[in-house]
Amino acid sequence: MNTPRAGANCEPLKRLIREVPDFPVKGVLFYDITTLLKDRLGFAMLIDALAEYYLPKKPHLVLGMEARGFIFGPALAYRLNAGFVPVRKPGKLPAPTARKEYELEYGKNTLEIHRDAIEPGQRVIIVDDLLSTGGTAAATVELAKSLGAKIAGLGFVVELDFLKGREKLGEYDVYSLLHYDH
Amino acid sequence: MNTPRAGANCEPLKRLIREVPDFPVKGVLFYDITTLLKDRLGFAMLIDALAEYYLPKKPHLVLGMEARGFIFGPALAYRLNAGFVPVRKPGKLPAPTARKEYELEYGKNTLEIHRDAIEPGQRVIIVDDLLSTGGTAAATVELAKSLGAKIAGLGFVVELDFLKGREKLGEYDVYSLLHYDH
Repeated sequence: MNTPRAGANCEPLKRLIREVPDFPVKGVLFYDITTLLKDRLGFAMLIDALAEYYLPKKPHLVLGMEARGFIFGPALAYRLNAGFVPVRKPGKLPAPTARKEYELEYGKNTLEIHRDAIEPGQRVIIVDDLLSTGGTAAATVELAKSLGAKIAGLGFVVELDFLKGREKLGEYDVYSLLHYDH
Repeated sequence: MNTPRAGANCEPLKRLIREVPDFPVKGVLFYDITTLLKDRLGFAMLIDALAEYYLPKKPHLVLGMEARGFIFGPALAYRLNAGFVPVRKPGKLPAPTARKEYELEYGKNTLEIHRDAIEPGQRVIIVDDLLSTGGTAAATVELAKSLGAKIAGLGFVVELDFLKGREKLGEYDVYSLLHYDH
């Protein structure tokens, strides 16, 4: 299970996150990370905190999901001296892919990964900006496993604890920098 | 004008780029960078080559366009100790935005940036994976200038020289790591 070592150190970064009520729909409080990203010190602290946690796991690859996972995954991959693999919406990847359809709160979504993106046995970490219900992360885990990856962990910038997405990822190491209770 | 200093050093990275014929449509040769991204040495060389060029320009911010600009912009921002600003498709950014509509070969596209993303006078570089006709890059330049940014340059991983996108960006410093003639 997760040991949120560095979590406490990152708490000041919450001051750089903008809270936008009623986005994208009425009644939802949106945690806007763009105000953190544009702060060079905040952004560096965030990547360094993830790197500190994941360096000992020696991942070969970082996987990031379109579109906001692309913001954190490659920067972390660079810091960890790992490669980066994009997990994309359908039709974007030009070579043969594996596909996974999964349920959203309303409707369905599909993700794709190149079939040759991971060599069997490679250690991967999966990175996204937000852990909410966990559907996207769980689908990415399945895609990675279908290619023979060893899941070394899942990392998030923000976790909405009250949505219990972590429960969908029970058997894996899940690490989030910032937690929100509402 | 551009001085492609490090260009020659990056030429070996072309071996890591997969050429996919007839994607996304028949007759187009697609340069697939995912095979470069997953190679940790190749990916590091790429970010380091961009950083070597842009460090002397001391940018405050790196701007990247959704979605593949998100892959390179933040990693470069991290390396340069700069902040990152996402330029997004309509409706994705939660706070007030500036918008720019621009022409594509077929149809139109729109990009948005948060109005408070850049402080007047900040030096920014604009990063994307590909310079083709230059429409997306030119629109991003206009958005950044409308917020008072100083454009310190535009950086690309791949430039399709035969599409002459560089001509749309004539007054700015344009730097691409890899050039293709067809």
